[in-house]
Amino acid sequence: MFKNISIIGCGLIGSSLLRAIKKKKLSNKISACDNSKSVLNFLEKEGLADLITDNKQTAIKNSDLVIIATPLSSYSSILGEIKDFLSIGSIVTDTGSVKSVANKLFMSLKKKDVSWIPSHPIAGTEESGPQAGFAEIFENRWSIISPNSDSKKEDVKKLENFWKNIGCRVKFMDCDEHDQILSITSHLPHAVAYSLVKTAIGNDEKLKQEIIKYSAGGLRDFTRIASSDPTMWRDIFIENSENVIKILDSFCDNLKIFKKALVQKDGKELEKLFRSTKNLRKEIIDAGQEINKPDFGRKKN
Amino acid sequence: MFKNISIIGCGLIGSSLLRAIKKKKLSNKISACDNSKSVLNFLEKEGLADLITDNKQTAIKNSDLVIIATPLSSYSSILGEIKDFLSIGSIVTDTGSVKSVANKLFMSLKKKDVSWIPSHPIAGTEESGPQAGFAEIFENRWSIISPNSDSKKEDVKKLENFWKNIGCRVKFMDCDEHDQILSITSHLPHAVAYSLVKTAIGNDEKLKQEIIKYSAGGLRDFTRIASSDPTMWRDIFIENSENVIKILDSFCDNLKIFKKALVQKDGKELEKLFRSTKNLRKEIIDAGQEINKPDFGRKKN
Repeated sequence: MFKNISIIGCGLIGSSLLRAIKKKKLSNKISACDNSKSVLNFLEKEGLADLITDNKQTAIKNSDLVIIATPLSSYSSILGEIKDFLSIGSIVTDTGSVKSVANKLFMSLKKKDVSWIPSHPIAGTEESGPQAGFAEIFENRWSIISPNSDSKKEDVKKLENFWKNIGCRVKFMDCDEHDQILSITSHLPHAVAYSLVKTAIGNDEKLKQEIIKYSAGGLRDFTRIASSDPTMWRDIFIENSENVIKILDSFCDNLKIFKKALVQKDGKELEKLFRSTKNLRKEIIDAGQEINKPDFGRKKN
Repeated sequence: MFKNISIIGCGLIGSSLLRAIKKKKLSNKISACDNSKSVLNFLEKEGLADLITDNKQTAIKNSDLVIIATPLSSYSSILGEIKDFLSIGSIVTDTGSVKSVANKLFMSLKKKDVSWIPSHPIAGTEESGPQAGFAEIFENRWSIISPNSDSKKEDVKKLENFWKNIGCRVKFMDCDEHDQILSITSHLPHAVAYSLVKTAIGNDEKLKQEIIKYSAGGLRDFTRIASSDPTMWRDIFIENSENVIKILDSFCDNLKIFKKALVQKDGKELEKLFRSTKNLRKEIIDAGQEINKPDFGRKKN
């Protein structure tokens, strides 16, 4: 239980946190901060926080937990604004999808009287903005916590309990390992989906209309993550470019093998590939990370 | 209304057709044929057809509509077995995902007293086998019909009505156009999903377990189509290799542009790409080809 949690950035994730904290009564007071007037109006209308402001220093005053939930490129200016106003003994964390760069940034501030402990709840939808948020978005999702060597044990424990109370399972992992694994599970899939949808759209408007019509053959699956927030994803790719380039190269190598099998009409090679990937979905379902419904349960669309 | 429809190949699509034909009473008699004993037992147990047999000639006897719903590589031997036993005046169609090769094959038989009219209902899930079929799989999906220049108009009309009665919308398109469009909307997405999942699995068992754990960040979307039937997809890629190679090359060109932007940390270029793909999903939803639910409606998993 915290006395005063403040959230900076109240889009999909930030607003979902506000809802979950309120619903599960995880703080006596909740403060919400955002740059956007329309976001603030929405928070007011829905009554999602006790204090709603566009002033970061006001928002974090007396907070014992500050959560930054903005695109990564805002971290530098946010930290600049708040660093001298953080309460002694408070915990600062974030929800960003890349950890190493943000971690270096915060560590360079040398705020010895504040616990900086990065985290990343692997939750979200393709939508953005506070209207799209909901408290249950974190249920059964993993939240990765990346403590530094000098992170206070009791603060790490507090943050772990916070994420568990929110609904997450918690895993500890250092920032570099996090960024490598997420480049495979999240960043490469987004890179591929964006590039595939761009390829499919092409330049021919008539063809595009046909593509839309017959997209149920597979393409529509990719359009979901290819409609994710452009600013957020720009920042993720910039901050994790090295890892993404590496895994993108492996992917391109696999595409070359695939193309070679096509050119040679090598049915055995193709079937071998298709059999090798067949079971991953079942393993993901068994791990509780996917719904157990064919076609994502679209049956009734 | 047909007198006797026979289905050759009773997997996901064939068995779904049996169910839909029965439910909507589109034939006086339904005959089902499959090579697999366990499939035949399942059809018997569920009572999905009036005649259930592994003998193709028995199945098609007196049929006025024969539907081939097997993997593409079986067409040649199936047509060899049935060509001399097709009823005069009957319609023969199929449900295959590539049309040109099958069309040439059938046309080479020169069966002037039988109407060969290829079709392709763009419906399915990642599952296979008759257990996975259901009558509603065709609802609101497009079925493409590809008549030849000498196809009898009244038979084309009959087949059009059949697919409409099954629940599909119908579009006429020649085989070459079909194969080009489907290479973009279906075959490339499958090629990419298979290759992406292969890349993610890698060779390191420990890393694979981590990948499974954190797959909710995007990867799990791709595992759906990467778990599709290996035999069916081997045949599709072999028969449509030329079109797939062409669109795969465009996709690789787009990946190169993406990689260049990563190497140069060119945020503007990345954001431009992400904005360009953002709206396709909405257009697909507006066209009635996707459910209008964030995260495929996974909310409660």
